[in-house]
Amino acid sequence: MTLWGGVFRQQTDEAVRRLNDSLPFDWRLYDADITGSQAWSGALTKAGILAESEHLAILSGLEQVRAEFAAGVFQPAPGDEDIHTAVERRLGEIIGPVAGKLHTGRSRNDQVATDLRLWLAAALPPLIDQVVAIQQALIGQAEQHIESVMPGFTHLQPAQPITAAHWLMSYAQMLERDRTRLTQVVAALKVSPLGCGALAGTPYPIDRADLATALGLDTPAANSLDAVSDRDFVAGFLYVSALLLVHLSRLAEDVILFSNPRFGFVTLDERYSTGSSLMPQKRNPDPLELARGKAGRIIGHLTGFLTTLKGLPGGYNKDLQEDKEPLFDTHDTLAVLLPVLAGLIETMTFHPERMRAALDEAMLATDLADYLVMKGVPFRQAHHLAGQVVRLAEEKHVTLSELPPQDYRTISEHFDTDVYRVFDFTAAVARRKALGGTAPEAVRAQIAQLKAQIQGKNRQVNDAS
Amino acid sequence: MTLWGGVFRQQTDEAVRRLNDSLPFDWRLYDADITGSQAWSGALTKAGILAESEHLAILSGLEQVRAEFAAGVFQPAPGDEDIHTAVERRLGEIIGPVAGKLHTGRSRNDQVATDLRLWLAAALPPLIDQVVAIQQALIGQAEQHIESVMPGFTHLQPAQPITAAHWLMSYAQMLERDRTRLTQVVAALKVSPLGCGALAGTPYPIDRADLATALGLDTPAANSLDAVSDRDFVAGFLYVSALLLVHLSRLAEDVILFSNPRFGFVTLDERYSTGSSLMPQKRNPDPLELARGKAGRIIGHLTGFLTTLKGLPGGYNKDLQEDKEPLFDTHDTLAVLLPVLAGLIETMTFHPERMRAALDEAMLATDLADYLVMKGVPFRQAHHLAGQVVRLAEEKHVTLSELPPQDYRTISEHFDTDVYRVFDFTAAVARRKALGGTAPEAVRAQIAQLKAQIQGKNRQVNDAS
Amino acid sequence: MTLWGGVFRQQTDEAVRRLNDSLPFDWRLYDADITGSQAWSGALTKAGILAESEHLAILSGLEQVRAEFAAGVFQPAPGDEDIHTAVERRLGEIIGPVAGKLHTGRSRNDQVATDLRLWLAAALPPLIDQVVAIQQALIGQAEQHIESVMPGFTHLQPAQPITAAHWLMSYAQMLERDRTRLTQVVAALKVSPLGCGALAGTPYPIDRADLATALGLDTPAANSLDAVSDRDFVAGFLYVSALLLVHLSRLAEDVILFSNPRFGFVTLDERYSTGSSLMPQKRNPDPLELARGKAGRIIGHLTGFLTTLKGLPGGYNKDLQEDKEPLFDTHDTLAVLLPVLAGLIETMTFHPERMRAALDEAMLATDLADYLVMKGVPFRQAHHLAGQVVRLAEEKHVTLSELPPQDYRTISEHFDTDVYRVFDFTAAVARRKALGGTAPEAVRAQIAQLKAQIQGKNRQVNDAS
Amino acid sequence: MTLWGGVFRQQTDEAVRRLNDSLPFDWRLYDADITGSQAWSGALTKAGILAESEHLAILSGLEQVRAEFAAGVFQPAPGDEDIHTAVERRLGEIIGPVAGKLHTGRSRNDQVATDLRLWLAAALPPLIDQVVAIQQALIGQAEQHIESVMPGFTHLQPAQPITAAHWLMSYAQMLERDRTRLTQVVAALKVSPLGCGALAGTPYPIDRADLATALGLDTPAANSLDAVSDRDFVAGFLYVSALLLVHLSRLAEDVILFSNPRFGFVTLDERYSTGSSLMPQKRNPDPLELARGKAGRIIGHLTGFLTTLKGLPGGYNKDLQEDKEPLFDTHDTLAVLLPVLAGLIETMTFHPERMRAALDEAMLATDLADYLVMKGVPFRQAHHLAGQVVRLAEEKHVTLSELPPQDYRTISEHFDTDVYRVFDFTAAVARRKALGGTAPEAVRAQIAQLKAQIQGKNRQVNDAS
Repeated sequence: MTLWGGVFRQQTDEAVRRLNDSLPFDWRLYDADITGSQAWSGALTKAGILAESEHLAILSGLEQVRAEFAAGVFQPAPGDEDIHTAVERRLGEIIGPVAGKLHTGRSRNDQVATDLRLWLAAALPPLIDQVVAIQQALIGQAEQHIESVMPGFTHLQPAQPITAAHWLMSYAQMLERDRTRLTQVVAALKVSPLGCGALAGTPYPIDRADLATALGLDTPAANSLDAVSDRDFVAGFLYVSALLLVHLSRLAEDVILFSNPRFGFVTLDERYSTGSSLMPQKRNPDPLELARGKAGRIIGHLTGFLTTLKGLPGGYNKDLQEDKEPLFDTHDTLAVLLPVLAGLIETMTFHPERMRAALDEAMLATDLADYLVMKGVPFRQAHHLAGQVVRLAEEKHVTLSELPPQDYRTISEHFDTDVYRVFDFTAAVARRKALGGTAPEAVRAQIAQLKAQIQGKNRQVNDAS
Repeated sequence: MTLWGGVFRQQTDEAVRRLNDSLPFDWRLYDADITGSQAWSGALTKAGILAESEHLAILSGLEQVRAEFAAGVFQPAPGDEDIHTAVERRLGEIIGPVAGKLHTGRSRNDQVATDLRLWLAAALPPLIDQVVAIQQALIGQAEQHIESVMPGFTHLQPAQPITAAHWLMSYAQMLERDRTRLTQVVAALKVSPLGCGALAGTPYPIDRADLATALGLDTPAANSLDAVSDRDFVAGFLYVSALLLVHLSRLAEDVILFSNPRFGFVTLDERYSTGSSLMPQKRNPDPLELARGKAGRIIGHLTGFLTTLKGLPGGYNKDLQEDKEPLFDTHDTLAVLLPVLAGLIETMTFHPERMRAALDEAMLATDLADYLVMKGVPFRQAHHLAGQVVRLAEEKHVTLSELPPQDYRTISEHFDTDVYRVFDFTAAVARRKALGGTAPEAVRAQIAQLKAQIQGKNRQVNDAS
Repeated sequence: MTLWGGVFRQQTDEAVRRLNDSLPFDWRLYDADITGSQAWSGALTKAGILAESEHLAILSGLEQVRAEFAAGVFQPAPGDEDIHTAVERRLGEIIGPVAGKLHTGRSRNDQVATDLRLWLAAALPPLIDQVVAIQQALIGQAEQHIESVMPGFTHLQPAQPITAAHWLMSYAQMLERDRTRLTQVVAALKVSPLGCGALAGTPYPIDRADLATALGLDTPAANSLDAVSDRDFVAGFLYVSALLLVHLSRLAEDVILFSNPRFGFVTLDERYSTGSSLMPQKRNPDPLELARGKAGRIIGHLTGFLTTLKGLPGGYNKDLQEDKEPLFDTHDTLAVLLPVLAGLIETMTFHPERMRAALDEAMLATDLADYLVMKGVPFRQAHHLAGQVVRLAEEKHVTLSELPPQDYRTISEHFDTDVYRVFDFTAAVARRKALGGTAPEAVRAQIAQLKAQIQGKNRQVNDAS
Repeated sequence: MTLWGGVFRQQTDEAVRRLNDSLPFDWRLYDADITGSQAWSGALTKAGILAESEHLAILSGLEQVRAEFAAGVFQPAPGDEDIHTAVERRLGEIIGPVAGKLHTGRSRNDQVATDLRLWLAAALPPLIDQVVAIQQALIGQAEQHIESVMPGFTHLQPAQPITAAHWLMSYAQMLERDRTRLTQVVAALKVSPLGCGALAGTPYPIDRADLATALGLDTPAANSLDAVSDRDFVAGFLYVSALLLVHLSRLAEDVILFSNPRFGFVTLDERYSTGSSLMPQKRNPDPLELARGKAGRIIGHLTGFLTTLKGLPGGYNKDLQEDKEPLFDTHDTLAVLLPVLAGLIETMTFHPERMRAALDEAMLATDLADYLVMKGVPFRQAHHLAGQVVRLAEEKHVTLSELPPQDYRTISEHFDTDVYRVFDFTAAVARRKALGGTAPEAVRAQIAQLKAQIQGKNRQVNDAS
């Protein structure tokens, strides 16, 4: 039995039911729905609408419903079009007609908006922890490879030598922003729509601020018409997740490349690779490819949901039922993917000797220009001269340090025999020790700071929740 | 047991398995997978790789697997990472080691590409039929309302009177283009990747053209490296579906508006409305709102999948596993939604008297300008004069036909007493009888032509498949 | 002349130049680029790389370049591939070879990232002001219509009576969240990439924290490799703008509907409407339709840019040049659109009598159920009974208050003659006075609070900047 | 002066004008607009609305307007809100009041829809030619490298040896599908909306089929209400372009990788590389990165436009003005990018010796399994044994051919001394000669067929147009 039959003369068409019903996916809101109903029952009691005994009956009846869901023994009935109907229907079976008083002054519009916020508020902290786990895996590897020098790329062309730790930390920093954003999503969603009714508010003397507190939320929504159709927090979560996946897709791209044997900088642990049904030698970085591919999936969810919202008339429209599947799928995608990536990073083997072998003296051409700058040559001219050195070495098929002094002098009289000291990758890296640079010294400071941040903010989140 | 253990020393991590495994969603390819394997077994036999008896054992073993799936009794095993593994594993249990010969010269890369094409080729015709069902519902209503005059809108402001049939047929025409596009998707996907191996082709003397025919496909893919990662047909289906949903979202928007009591042009059948948990009087057009909302969902699937494809290296990458869920969900969304919309349109009640009551003589201002054109006034000037008439009537709070002749003469001497004949909505509609116009005569011709088209193309599709 | 010719033996192809050059759109960064270069010159001077006299020459030379741009007299040269090249080239013409020292230790990678942040930091506050202007227009209208009762809709079907002010304020609240988000974008972007070089940091002893302060930014970026390819702030701005446009598209949809004569709740000022080339009577709400349509445009920019970022290798890649056009176009779209919407809302005329005429007693069915609740009937049963009342009235073609007492008693003995008091729209609205409700009393409180918030936060922003 | 002032008492607000006016971007429709107007003038003349002399005046006046645009001397006036207004205004200045007769029975709604179709119909063939140019560049290189063996990758891990020609042709085949789709876009757009008026059709006796022919289009649109808001052809072009860019992004990704020195398979010509402002040695593949990045841009345009269309009420809405910028930008992006890519591919140098050096005998593990299959071992078991061989070789740090016979025998008794013949890359490639395979023989056939297709279809297009 639905919650709304009185005005209708005809049954809903069976195909419409299949289209309309959300229980197949919104059942997972059961815990939030029950918590919300218990708080509402409390608010109605304080407002004098329910007797204390009715309230207690509702509370314990709802606990039984929750237990049935938790134990996986809840039996849906044919008329259960959504989780709200299912819970109320079952509550009535358990405690009788008094269950019919629970929905007083409430609408599914404010109810579902509340449920969704409670659900997401509970679901986010574990995801944030998983982001931290990846950061910690990156930091852990970075601490092992502070001195390992590897080619740094821009445009995927050799650019300058960097430390492996620096490369790893660049991703830890991206994730730090993602973590901050996820925390902001938590903060922004702690608004309570309960007591907003269908659109106009509730005619009962409900203390909505008190009710928000009872729900563990920060503040009641300021406008009932807005509150029932406000899904900004869903969009916000989708956006923050999409950007997180974008960052992970970049990490994945780099590790896929670096584990290709032409690079050979890293090897994935076999537990994080899979094979081929045809080619016996294959070990494929499937988890990384899925991370990269799923960035598309989550960008799709974000786009799709914004498109669903676009142009809706004010107030609640059924289109908003399309909020749940992208939200749940985004959550589930992260919940499955993030731990795998943490493990993959943690167990990945680095090959510092392969990295070093891939260095090429032309990657020190900037340092060669800087050498000239130290001799007083304006950088723009120094850049040009260093370029000519590289070209000459190429034409002679030698490395930069193999070019004889006279070749250097031909290009510029500012070149002296001390120019050969430039060709030291370790020294080049060590020079870049200004804040944020690739020098071991700077990276150590960077690591220390990020660790402090993670610890500090985590404490904050735990305090807040 | 996976299909690829030999080179590995370690088991896959359990979390990686959960991320990687596709059986939870690709099991629905079982029929296509088995059909594909039977054809491959045949091809191997013709190529002399399998003995006829082995082929027969494989064929009948696969039939048994298919029967188990069809009956819902297939038991997945822990190592079944995807439908291909599951089927081959079960085949081995049924027919013994000869099952191990089936995968000779084949890769999961060409196998899954084949499966997906076969699955979609089978899934599309019923969807096309459902599109036709909506067209027929629209045409059926149009035939009832060829003479019903209603306000036509542009910018959602009253523009000119049109017939309800004309409005209905505008959507039937959009769907006609969608239908054509769906048919083109069917045609474009009938390419066989089987025999392309993992990337390089097969070393066995397989007649791929013959094999394509055995699969019911038109032609073998021309390049094996391309074939294993070609998902254009998936993107194509998503695009065509997204545009179909865009059209349905527009139809939904119109019907939602027209069923609002301020318009009151139509009433939905109660079987296609639902109620409110709070507001007893409500009858909401939920199926239409879901149609509108789901346009976002499918646009999201399209965007997400194109994004997944963007920037992939050549050949097969695991990212492509992200093709199935958007494909299946798009199919399922259409399969559930389309029949509901057909039923909703078919059972919708029109209120011609409310439509007519909503007409306003200012909607004939164009005809008023045309009247002046007939008197020799250039249209641009006639437009300006007609605008002044409307303005004057507004200022006097009268309708256009209530303005006295002297008011008309003040504005232009070309107005004569016959001007009042302009204010006839039925005549205005009837004048627009050029091809594609709103006149009953033109709409009748339009309906006849579209019916012929639908019949003709349907015949084609049935012949082709 | 480009900045990088030395190693090259061949000129860039002309078509490549057209593809590559960004000056046609990045010239608008000139002010930020010059400010950034002046700060960099200062940092080089403090680091002992430039002499004070060189620094002064650079400063004043750059001021001249800025003046040329500001006056619109800057002459681009053929080799000016981007704004950075153009400025440096022109600086050289003005101050001679010392200009070649400016780029010491800097890369266009950190330079452009800095420019873009400076540009957006300057561009955002005016946009935020424009959002506030729309809020103020909404609040201004709300203050005029606190007592005006209109039909509130859910599913675009009549739901409950609400006040016009409540409806207006629902949008003011959405915009309040948008404003908060825009402010967070400003806060998040105040990170300085300058001194990160191309990827590895700078080898010169630059005090990057000091440099950040000189730029008006809060903190130096923590990792140079990350910093040069971090465009999270661009994505963030696009996302926040997309959601803002989504909200405006909903406002637009409502106003378009309510200005349709079937509703007639509002009339747009003629200055904010446009006409038709064919239909003389037309006044179309073009600005609102464009607001709605442009939501798609900005969602497209967001999607496109996230897609561009997806799967990029670490560090700078040229793909990132695709950040500017969506960023600039989003800014320009808002800059043109927001003031128009503020003016349109401000000048819109409400028709309270048309709103009230559109009310229907069935919209009080919830209040009828609440009446029964007050008599002790559980709400669920009361809802069903109220539904039957509505159905009976429909069948008898009368309003709810026209049903005689005996009809009420037939449906439930709890109905008494005082039931007719329910049918008072003003009283129904007034009852919903809990926080966030539609009662004039509650809306007044809501308006006061939002005004205080806007003032308070604005002060914050101004203090911060 | 606008085309529609009569009913208005007030001027449009200046900011609204800036928002509304489309002349800054739709001026490029001038040629199509004039052609359309000339045809309309002809149709009005045949219908008896214009005198032959009026028609001739209009024709020649319009030719003069066209010449002014073509010569770049057209002077826009303040009231020219769009190209249609601008042309009609100027026509009036040239030929006087008779210009005011041109818009008889026509609306900007059918006019702009016609203009856009004519414009795109003219713009597409050159783009298709550019796609062919890339195909020809790929084919040209393929013909040079039919025997060059390189590592083929799946999951970016070494998979099997393939020929460079095969790799090149995989992209030529993707483009072949793009080309077909572009051709279908041309075919689908050749529908004429002219004579549909604003929504209801035209009241004048226009022969719309005849008019369509005069415009070079195939058929008149069947429903006027649909025709004025049908932008399926725009969405279709955006979709087809997005998929084309996706393919080009994959090609770009491959070439970027292969030109990284760790691979070193190809070198870009210097004319198609650019340098760094900081690092003198850099040669960056900017055009390829831009191709990859612009895939995001076009996917964004597609998404944005579908989102704009979603949920629009029937008939023309101003939101549709948002069709032009994504359409034009997509066109311009392709027009600039495609020729660069053709040139880049054509001038790219291959390094067959580097490709061959990158081959690794483990890439022949599948052939090793096939060897066992030939000895009667079921493939599934053979796969496992070959995997063990690879593992053993890894453990012993030797290549597969360096493992002694007894090691092979330990793993399987089916290994004989002829096993060493497997380790021949050229032979492995040559075996894959089934249709679509990587063998030189098969690739030669593939090339021949594609060349024939291109020639054949091109002929068709030219015949059709």
